[in-house]
Amino acid sequence: MPIYNAPIKDMQFILHDLLKVSEQDIPGFDELDRDFTGAVLEEAGKVASEVLAPLNGVGDTEGCVLENGTVRTPKGFKEAFKQMKDGGWTAMDCDPQYGGQGLPYIMHMAAQETLVSANMAFQMYQGLTHAAYSAIYIHGTDAQKQMYLPKMTTCEWTGTMNLTEPHCGTDLGLMRTKADPQDDGSYAITGQKIFISAGDHDMADNIIHLVLAKIPGGPDGIKGVSLFIVPKFIVNDDGSLGDRNGVSVGKIEEKMGIHGNATCVMNYDGAKGYLLGEMHKGMRAMFTMMNEARLGVGLQGYAQSEVAYQNAVAYANDRLQGRAVTGVENPEGPADPLMVHPDIRRNLMDQKSFNEGARALTFWGAYLMDRAHKNGDAEADGLISLMTPVIKGFQSDKGFEYAVAAQQVYGGHGYIEESGMSQFARDARIAMIYEGANSVQALDLVGRKLAQDGGKHVMAFFEMIKTFIADNKGDEAYERDFLDPLKAASKDLQAAGMYFMQNGMKNPNNALAGSYDFMHMMGHVCIGLMWARMGKAAIDALADGASDTAFYETKIATGRYYMARQLPATALHLARINTGADTVMALDAAQF
Amino acid sequence: MPIYNAPIKDMQFILHDLLKVSEQDIPGFDELDRDFTGAVLEEAGKVASEVLAPLNGVGDTEGCVLENGTVRTPKGFKEAFKQMKDGGWTAMDCDPQYGGQGLPYIMHMAAQETLVSANMAFQMYQGLTHAAYSAIYIHGTDAQKQMYLPKMTTCEWTGTMNLTEPHCGTDLGLMRTKADPQDDGSYAITGQKIFISAGDHDMADNIIHLVLAKIPGGPDGIKGVSLFIVPKFIVNDDGSLGDRNGVSVGKIEEKMGIHGNATCVMNYDGAKGYLLGEMHKGMRAMFTMMNEARLGVGLQGYAQSEVAYQNAVAYANDRLQGRAVTGVENPEGPADPLMVHPDIRRNLMDQKSFNEGARALTFWGAYLMDRAHKNGDAEADGLISLMTPVIKGFQSDKGFEYAVAAQQVYGGHGYIEESGMSQFARDARIAMIYEGANSVQALDLVGRKLAQDGGKHVMAFFEMIKTFIADNKGDEAYERDFLDPLKAASKDLQAAGMYFMQNGMKNPNNALAGSYDFMHMMGHVCIGLMWARMGKAAIDALADGASDTAFYETKIATGRYYMARQLPATALHLARINTGADTVMALDAAQF
Repeated sequence: MPIYNAPIKDMQFILHDLLKVSEQDIPGFDELDRDFTGAVLEEAGKVASEVLAPLNGVGDTEGCVLENGTVRTPKGFKEAFKQMKDGGWTAMDCDPQYGGQGLPYIMHMAAQETLVSANMAFQMYQGLTHAAYSAIYIHGTDAQKQMYLPKMTTCEWTGTMNLTEPHCGTDLGLMRTKADPQDDGSYAITGQKIFISAGDHDMADNIIHLVLAKIPGGPDGIKGVSLFIVPKFIVNDDGSLGDRNGVSVGKIEEKMGIHGNATCVMNYDGAKGYLLGEMHKGMRAMFTMMNEARLGVGLQGYAQSEVAYQNAVAYANDRLQGRAVTGVENPEGPADPLMVHPDIRRNLMDQKSFNEGARALTFWGAYLMDRAHKNGDAEADGLISLMTPVIKGFQSDKGFEYAVAAQQVYGGHGYIEESGMSQFARDARIAMIYEGANSVQALDLVGRKLAQDGGKHVMAFFEMIKTFIADNKGDEAYERDFLDPLKAASKDLQAAGMYFMQNGMKNPNNALAGSYDFMHMMGHVCIGLMWARMGKAAIDALADGASDTAFYETKIATGRYYMARQLPATALHLARINTGADTVMALDAAQF
Repeated sequence: MPIYNAPIKDMQFILHDLLKVSEQDIPGFDELDRDFTGAVLEEAGKVASEVLAPLNGVGDTEGCVLENGTVRTPKGFKEAFKQMKDGGWTAMDCDPQYGGQGLPYIMHMAAQETLVSANMAFQMYQGLTHAAYSAIYIHGTDAQKQMYLPKMTTCEWTGTMNLTEPHCGTDLGLMRTKADPQDDGSYAITGQKIFISAGDHDMADNIIHLVLAKIPGGPDGIKGVSLFIVPKFIVNDDGSLGDRNGVSVGKIEEKMGIHGNATCVMNYDGAKGYLLGEMHKGMRAMFTMMNEARLGVGLQGYAQSEVAYQNAVAYANDRLQGRAVTGVENPEGPADPLMVHPDIRRNLMDQKSFNEGARALTFWGAYLMDRAHKNGDAEADGLISLMTPVIKGFQSDKGFEYAVAAQQVYGGHGYIEESGMSQFARDARIAMIYEGANSVQALDLVGRKLAQDGGKHVMAFFEMIKTFIADNKGDEAYERDFLDPLKAASKDLQAAGMYFMQNGMKNPNNALAGSYDFMHMMGHVCIGLMWARMGKAAIDALADGASDTAFYETKIATGRYYMARQLPATALHLARINTGADTVMALDAAQF
């Protein structure tokens, strides 16, 4: 069975050496001292390794089954879900007013990583509930909040998000589901939604569906879409559960992965729904969920890559095959471990340097969310808005790539389901698709976010890098290994932005043809910045006499690897971007 | 259900415009005029689309089942296999002396592509038989050839290759299976082999296992390995089937993909085996199979990418989602087809330009094999020996990458098994692993092939590029779009070779740490060379007044895309190679 150990030291390094969370002037952050965060993460890691990880393969093999209109989850899921609730793992950052623990979002995300690495399909039931909680928390009336949130913080009731229909995913303006106003102020929701994760299951008493639909007579297209709360069981005024609502599961999809999570076709047949937020402003409310969900998906990317990596390392140390070209290293054994071979190292270092960089970027993103939400910091808000498509798109692409790379270390054994390595890759694959396929993330980044508020946020990002480099000069090796590569990569990214400005006006295709490259390029620059900062933090810790020198030296070596071998990808992306739309758009549709 | 149409025009272009096969002075090539090859490929394509493709999903869903010691193949496989035999599709290039059709290997490979695209798992039963045929054909005694080959050309008997054991895959010197000499001149084979594709099934009367084992008392390690013919049923002297041999299926593995092909644990319990080739020279004989199989796996890579691409194109033209940023293109519809979006184009062009380039490289490889085998051309032999790890490693990596990219075009629908896109990706995944994991291909390329015969073959390859560039100057646009990028990429590749020479002596890890990058780099340069040649061939065809101008213009545009957007990857690979082993080998095993 695959192993999983929560990388708590690495997380603590990011929280304390890098972000220095307890020193930040953000409400709630003063509590986050090293002991406290360590204790929380230790406990989360225990739940992840002992409760969730053992069910990961079970979920994959058994999958979910539709029986008499209800979804049965794989064996053991119900009990594990109860343990999650009982342990208080469902609402770390929720408002204490509704039963949450009121911790910063960054702590929620750190704990999430361990749970997602251990069992992504399982954790989605809770992740979607959290996103639905946020949408109701921000857009709901007081009565709605009182009615739904306390049960959602505990996951006694779970949540879903219903956007996609058979004929429309990205282009929600084509939506056909309608919401007919009723005399009692509610709406009758009718239509079919597909790809609804956690659409039904047997682990909660009620399921709160958030559903996009059109109120007849409203504006055409996306501007006429509203968001509705549609509970599986109608909730009575006293909070007790009433009638079964007119929503049912049409079928469960057979998927490439995340078999432990039921992906449902949901049929709404005049189901009772309650408007959430403003009429016709459903997309805005849905984006509250989406943005949070997108960060979560970026986390899923590297969380799957992380657990796959841990297993690949164990295998590389254990499996004896061939001899080191520089001389036998395991003379007592019949062969040396795979770990001696340079190309195995190259592969593992790719994975390791990405995982740790992506973790830093994600935690930094969560920290920006906290600053934005708790301090009302508009700059942080703008920055995380810019970063969201990068974190989602780049990290899910790379997360899948490296889950596949970790599988490769196993050779033939990686292709056999028994090893568990195939599941990591198959599960990671979905992150590139849902919550907006990565092509849409690239479009969002280049088509909207770059120019948002007059380009202010991307300028601030460049300025941040420039300032960081200027402020941290002095150590020759550090400059050569970290600052110089960062500077070069950042220059490439700026050149790409410049190309878009100069050529996108003439023909927007010149920018959009390079959007995917830009997203990846920016992902590299972000992780490059993280590694430059982590390298500095590690050097500082060593200078301050930190006792665990091996840990900090490993950080520096891993960072050097990323800067030397991954970050130079920006030049390739720039070269591609600079060719514009010419070769991309050259063919007629019939010529493909 | 997914579609498949054999890309016959593209194949004909390679055979006739590019390779001009019928003009080559190679025995049998004079027959290969345009009409003949077109007719053969037309028929192969029909079998592929009408017989094999409809069974691809069936094979994936049903898989193989072990019943009473025998493997039952998915519904319809048996009938389809009979159609393959009856149609003469099993032995196109086999020796007429043994019932083959004696066509050139290049025709065999071209026909194979269509069958592999249509149903890779199914086609492996035949592909392995072909490889076993070749091993017996080259290394067998006359009696062995008479006994086995006629039945193998028709696939009345199929073949397998047995190398891997539970504790050793790449490092076959650790092998434990033994072959005890018997009084009658045969050997008693005892041991366990794993990952045996097509190890058992119900579609042939007999299965001829080629098994590596050690004769006690022989040299240690790989030098003491011999190859044996171990039939499932002993063959009597009159050719009739005798007793069941002591070989049985331990179990069928559950795999990520190629479910239609039984991957078996094979137990040999004193099974009767017959030495094939020389004692203790088993690896040499096995490599006859391996080299052929590796070209076949390189073909599998792009063949899966090709069929996935065809479906992605159909979906992109069909699915309406969003509007073109440059203005509505489908005013009658509720939205424009996906095909209007630049990033969808970018993705499809990546796939298309790779598939066509890889096909050219593979056909060229097959042509070199024909030259080597039929003309005894040592240069061609050296060149294909150099190319084999590149074709296998690069094309299977990219084939998987682009099967995944094609799946991505489908958005959420691509993750659902019903669309068939997941299967293409899952099936393509194995090609990166079997017949020597791609890390081993990179090692073979950099550790052995580059220096083979004093580096003569890689020098010849560089010289070929140089000559081609020198000979084809004159057209400004062609120089800019094709020759200049090829020159730059080739320069990068030479610089990498130079780096290895200068730094690999001091420390071989400096070369091996860059081996994977080198393999990819060389793959790009090979495909770049193919595109430069195809671009020229298309320009020449247009200048000669070819009627199908759209076809040739599409070729030129697709080539321009590859040169502009894919080939520049060589610079990134060089940058990585130039950092040597330093950051790759920096950590102790415990620091991972």
